[in-house]
Amino acid sequence: MYEQRTPISVSEAVRRVMELTRTGDKELVDIKGAGGRYLAEAIIADHNIPPFNRTPLDGFAIRSEDTIAASPDKPVRLEVIETVGAGGVVHQPVYSGQAVRVMTGTMMPEDCDAIAMFELTKEIKADGKEWIELKRPFQPGEFVSFEGEETKAGDALIAAGTRIHAGVIAVLATFGYQNVPVVKQPVIGICATGTELLELNEPLVPGKIRNSNAYMVQAQIRQAGGKPVYYGQLADDFEQCYKAVAGALNEVDALITTGGVSVGDFDYLPEIYEKLGANVLFNKIAMRPGSVTTVAEKDGKLLFGLSGNPSACYVGFELFTRPWLKAFLHSNKPYMEWTKGILTADFPKPNPFTRFIRSKVSFVAGRITATPVGMDKSQVVTSLAKSDALVALPGGSRGYKAGDEVDILFLHREGTGDPFHDPTKLRKNK
Amino acid sequence: MYEQRTPISVSEAVRRVMELTRTGDKELVDIKGAGGRYLAEAIIADHNIPPFNRTPLDGFAIRSEDTIAASPDKPVRLEVIETVGAGGVVHQPVYSGQAVRVMTGTMMPEDCDAIAMFELTKEIKADGKEWIELKRPFQPGEFVSFEGEETKAGDALIAAGTRIHAGVIAVLATFGYQNVPVVKQPVIGICATGTELLELNEPLVPGKIRNSNAYMVQAQIRQAGGKPVYYGQLADDFEQCYKAVAGALNEVDALITTGGVSVGDFDYLPEIYEKLGANVLFNKIAMRPGSVTTVAEKDGKLLFGLSGNPSACYVGFELFTRPWLKAFLHSNKPYMEWTKGILTADFPKPNPFTRFIRSKVSFVAGRITATPVGMDKSQVVTSLAKSDALVALPGGSRGYKAGDEVDILFLHREGTGDPFHDPTKLRKNK
Repeated sequence: MYEQRTPISVSEAVRRVMELTRTGDKELVDIKGAGGRYLAEAIIADHNIPPFNRTPLDGFAIRSEDTIAASPDKPVRLEVIETVGAGGVVHQPVYSGQAVRVMTGTMMPEDCDAIAMFELTKEIKADGKEWIELKRPFQPGEFVSFEGEETKAGDALIAAGTRIHAGVIAVLATFGYQNVPVVKQPVIGICATGTELLELNEPLVPGKIRNSNAYMVQAQIRQAGGKPVYYGQLADDFEQCYKAVAGALNEVDALITTGGVSVGDFDYLPEIYEKLGANVLFNKIAMRPGSVTTVAEKDGKLLFGLSGNPSACYVGFELFTRPWLKAFLHSNKPYMEWTKGILTADFPKPNPFTRFIRSKVSFVAGRITATPVGMDKSQVVTSLAKSDALVALPGGSRGYKAGDEVDILFLHREGTGDPFHDPTKLRKNK
Repeated sequence: MYEQRTPISVSEAVRRVMELTRTGDKELVDIKGAGGRYLAEAIIADHNIPPFNRTPLDGFAIRSEDTIAASPDKPVRLEVIETVGAGGVVHQPVYSGQAVRVMTGTMMPEDCDAIAMFELTKEIKADGKEWIELKRPFQPGEFVSFEGEETKAGDALIAAGTRIHAGVIAVLATFGYQNVPVVKQPVIGICATGTELLELNEPLVPGKIRNSNAYMVQAQIRQAGGKPVYYGQLADDFEQCYKAVAGALNEVDALITTGGVSVGDFDYLPEIYEKLGANVLFNKIAMRPGSVTTVAEKDGKLLFGLSGNPSACYVGFELFTRPWLKAFLHSNKPYMEWTKGILTADFPKPNPFTRFIRSKVSFVAGRITATPVGMDKSQVVTSLAKSDALVALPGGSRGYKAGDEVDILFLHREGTGDPFHDPTKLRKNK
């Protein structure tokens, strides 16, 4: 018998999932392998940057008071008593009338308080000594990089939950993190359902298609910072399916299934949730594609029942699984970043459900535009290769046209703490 | 003696580097390891998608001609002769007055031409048989997904040089790519110079700082799709430096050095290029940070002489090394994507050189804004952790203020084929 399900809004579905977040434990990884991982702790400066007064230029460390009277007509002459490269320290006091040749990054000699860069000096050899001439006065502190001017010991530099990219690595290296405290990657299992699915190396036969979802979802998990474990394709038998799902759930932090959540005769997931004693958070969302997306919870672990249709499966992961996964990684920006932008195509047909249109973003003279790519059906796969955003078209009685301002959700940006709010009004007691 | 160098524009420097691009060879990798790699070949559909007419819904495959007279008052009754799940095929002819129960994804029975979804049917058991009643006529083709409606065999789906993300994986899996043709990653060597540099596990001592550039650049190489090989820190001795650089260059596709390219006493790179017989493309760029960035070529291999200052090193890599590396990966979008946007801070002091300000992008009501992060000096490191864009402020006689429209270059987006054009006018014969 056909089962009527009551749809909830996208925002409400996200809220229910995010009520059940968990956060992962810490582990240490070598800095060379830390790229793409998430910081488990805030990074606090344990020393000043720069750690000492230093020269940011190649030039001469001087005592500024020596240059008060300097002018083009009456240059001041200073004796160069030593050359110090970066990493070295001056070996003697610097007296009035003296200077030290210093290279970029060199610690300032204690007696000096200004830098005369090469371009502002004239070098002279006389009396068996080396000299420089300066044609203008220097201010105390001129051209000096002062200890702590960039960062002071104790400053909070990077928040826990930050994804580690090259710029973060630079800071970690600066503060000596050979081993970096990162969040253990959540292990996300994947079970595919669908007897129509062929493995990638099998030839096509009538009625069957290749299993693209399992590989796509593994890649989505990796992109979001998790560790996928693929349990293969479930057998076409309820008891075997049940055992496989229950067994996999024991070994993972969360379990994704693809397919089997609709109301078809072989859609076993609803029964499996029941037999598991899992709490079904929702089994119908007022969205396209992916209205059948189902999420259930068992002993604190989530079961993400994604659609078997590729576009629906993809969107379901990004809207519901990804934020859960990012929260596990301590991110305070778990949701897809979204903004207003301009739609470049017509969607004249109204739809009661919110549509998420696979799209490509362009930046045109400072405005954000989104161009739908390919067909807009839930079973479509090819458009996913070209999408970098989803355009949200709230459900209602009207269509949309090119030039309309719409909400654009970015697929490949880091994220936001502020979830997209779906303004679609749902009919009550439907 | 202080060496005068003649600066060239950023655009010209990029042009000179990109005249010397090479493209990498192909290798096959398992689809599970293909994420983040670059396609070595275009992906062409070798079969139609869908590969056969199929139902996109759970319902009944029918012969539309049977329903012409159907109405709420006079529903048409059809006998359900078989149930076929996705992956299965019908085992008998379907005659007029008959229907087949089919699940989402099932191949259409040859004799049927429309789908009546569950929601539009009433199921009845009578005379020991199963029946459905339909209360409206169905059009030929109604609700059917037709073979090839999404993609036709021979369609070019994804271009060579595309970075592989989850959406690309979905298409590769659909077309049976267990092994994916990707571009071999270029091997990029890194040598650090600077006797002030401590390894990460060494305690700080006066005058010394930790080597952040080597780790940062390794991460930048990985992010851009290359394979870094770190050769460690060069000794403070010209001959040893020369041998190390010459030796490393033999083993890599390109070599990055950090530091040693300026005019300081221990800046050996200019001499090393000379002794190698390398062709110096440029050694001064009208930009900040990173004006000393130097690129040389030896036997078709590039030597990227990046600054030792962290921000300058970072920017030099992104502006010059990254596009070369992406071109190696067959990308036709090797340059940082850029657009107009709004600056949110004042830079009142004019600068003759183009400045690249480390910034964070926000999308505010469909407009792109860029907010500078941290101090704007070449030796600064901490701002890199928070930047996702560079704001380009062309050189000239004026400063910039909050609200000005500026060019914003995105650090973490895929790229563009159209390099940023630096409008700074350089004085000739300086």
